[in-house]
Amino acid sequence: MSLVVVGSVALDTVETVVGTRKRVLGGAACFFSVAATRFTEVKLVGIIGDDFPEEYVSLLADRGVDLAGLERAAGKTFHWHGRYADDYSSRESLATELGVFAGFTPELPGPYREAQTLFLANIHPELQANVCQQMTSPRLIGCDTMDFWINGEPKALARTLSMVDLLTINDEEACLLTGEHNLVRAARGVLRMGPRYLVVKRGEHGALLFAGDEIFALPAVPLDRVVDPTGAGDTFAGGMLGHLDAVDAVDAAALRRGVAYGTATASFNVAEFSLDGLIAATRDDFDARTESLRRLVSF
Amino acid sequence: MSLVVVGSVALDTVETVVGTRKRVLGGAACFFSVAATRFTEVKLVGIIGDDFPEEYVSLLADRGVDLAGLERAAGKTFHWHGRYADDYSSRESLATELGVFAGFTPELPGPYREAQTLFLANIHPELQANVCQQMTSPRLIGCDTMDFWINGEPKALARTLSMVDLLTINDEEACLLTGEHNLVRAARGVLRMGPRYLVVKRGEHGALLFAGDEIFALPAVPLDRVVDPTGAGDTFAGGMLGHLDAVDAVDAAALRRGVAYGTATASFNVAEFSLDGLIAATRDDFDARTESLRRLVSF
Repeated sequence: MSLVVVGSVALDTVETVVGTRKRVLGGAACFFSVAATRFTEVKLVGIIGDDFPEEYVSLLADRGVDLAGLERAAGKTFHWHGRYADDYSSRESLATELGVFAGFTPELPGPYREAQTLFLANIHPELQANVCQQMTSPRLIGCDTMDFWINGEPKALARTLSMVDLLTINDEEACLLTGEHNLVRAARGVLRMGPRYLVVKRGEHGALLFAGDEIFALPAVPLDRVVDPTGAGDTFAGGMLGHLDAVDAVDAAALRRGVAYGTATASFNVAEFSLDGLIAATRDDFDARTESLRRLVSF
Repeated sequence: MSLVVVGSVALDTVETVVGTRKRVLGGAACFFSVAATRFTEVKLVGIIGDDFPEEYVSLLADRGVDLAGLERAAGKTFHWHGRYADDYSSRESLATELGVFAGFTPELPGPYREAQTLFLANIHPELQANVCQQMTSPRLIGCDTMDFWINGEPKALARTLSMVDLLTINDEEACLLTGEHNLVRAARGVLRMGPRYLVVKRGEHGALLFAGDEIFALPAVPLDRVVDPTGAGDTFAGGMLGHLDAVDAVDAAALRRGVAYGTATASFNVAEFSLDGLIAATRDDFDARTESLRRLVSF
C-alpha cells in the first residue's frame, strides 16, 4: 500500500491566546503526511524555497515520509501568518506569501504513479486534475478545496470533482459549492458532482460522512485545551486516508473507522503548535483515542 | 412516576424561509410537555390570558397533560414574534410581549408536589428556586436558563443552581456562566456550581452531557428539511426528562439514553411549525429515530 499527497509545504506564523510561533513547520501536505505515516507509506509532492530549514526536512524524513517528490526552488517558501480569536471561533490571515508555491506544478516521480491512494490537498483545481492524470490506476482519490476555488474556478473545479472519489470540505464550502442552505441537501448535491463520498469537516463540532444514502456522524473529541487548530483538517484527512490505504478497503466499515481515526488524529494536532502534538503521539495513542470516541458516543 | 414542568405557555408568531405562522401554540412548557407525555405522566404549571384559544387547551389535554396547574388570568397570553435567517443560523426577536406571564408566580397544586421529577423551564431564577421549595422530595430537578438571567441575576441564579441536579443550556450560555472560552472547562465550572449533570445543547451540532468526569456526545439527526427550530431545546429536555422519569433511574446509561431520546424528539419538532411535528410523531417514531441515531454514530 502507498499513499501520495500533493499540497503545500509551508512556514507558518501563528498567533493564539496561548502564544505565538514564528515560521514553524506547516502546510497541508506536512500535516497530512505526518498523520498518515502512522498508518501507511507516504510519498509527498510539494515545493520549498531556499529558506526552508533543513531540520524540517529531516523531521519529515525521520517520520518516514518519502521526499523524492519534494522540489527545491530558488526563492522563499510559502509563508502563512494567521491570528486566532481567543475562543478559536474564527481566524484572520495577516499574510499569505506564496513564494515558490506560486509556481508549483506538481510532477510525480515515476514510483509515485503506481500508488494505490492519492490525496489532493487544497491547490488550484487544474493542478489537481493534472495530478490525477499522472496516476496509473489509483484505487482512491481524495481531494480538498476551498471557497477561493469554488468562487473563482468553478469549471476547473467541476472537472476535478468528476475525477475524485472522496471530497473533504467544511459545511460552509459544501453549501457554497451547491447553493444549498441545508447541509444534507448540499451533501446530496456534492455527490451528484462526482465524488462517491463526502466528508464534511465541522471543526469542534466533529465530522459527517455521506456515502450514497448513508450518513455517519461523529462529534469531535472534547478537549479542555486547544492551542493551535492550524492543519486540523489536513491531519484529519491524513488519518482517514492513511487508514483506508492501510486496510486496502473502501467499504462502509472502513470509511466510518477512517473518519474516527481522522477525528482522533486531529485531536492530537490541535493540542500543540505546528505538528508538535502529532509528532508526540504514537499509533497506540491514535488507537486508544479512537476507542475513547466509541465510548464517547455509545448509549 | 410523574413529571412537573413549570414554564411559559405562549402564542408564537414565527417567520422562516418556508413561511409564516401567526399566534400558534408555543412556550417552553408546551414543547416540553408534549414531548414528555410520550414517556410519562406530565403536570404543567403555567399561565394564560383570556385570548388563549380553547383549542390549544384541548390539544394539551388530549395529549394527556395535567392542566390543574394552568392558571387563567385577565389579559394577554405571552406572545413571541421571531424571524429566522434563511439558513436558520440565527434568529431575531421582533416582539416579546409578556402579558400575563409578567405576573407569573408559580404555585404548585397539592398533588403536583409529590412528583418524582421537576423541570424548571427558563423563567426568573427566584421563581425557579421558589418552585423547588414547594416540592416534597423530588428525585431529579432539571433546569434551563438564558443569558438574560446569567447577566442580570447572577446571585439568584447561583442559588437556584445549588438546588438543581441537571442544567440544560447552550454552549454560549455555559461559557458566559463561567467566564471560560473552552467548553470542557466551562462544563467543569458549571458542575462546581451545583448541578451534578450538565447538558450542553448545540442545535444542529448535537448535544454534550457532562456527568462528573464522564462526557457523552451525540450529533443531531441530519435533516434535509428544517422548518421551525422554535422549542427544540425544550422538546429535547422533554424527551430526556420524560425518559428519566419513566425509567426511574438517573445512572449513566439512563442519562445517555435520555440524551438520545431528547435528540430524537427534537428532530421531529424542528421539521414542522409550532408543535405539529411533535404531535404527529408516535412513541414508536421516537424509538425508531433513537435507534437510527445509534446507527448514525456506530463504527
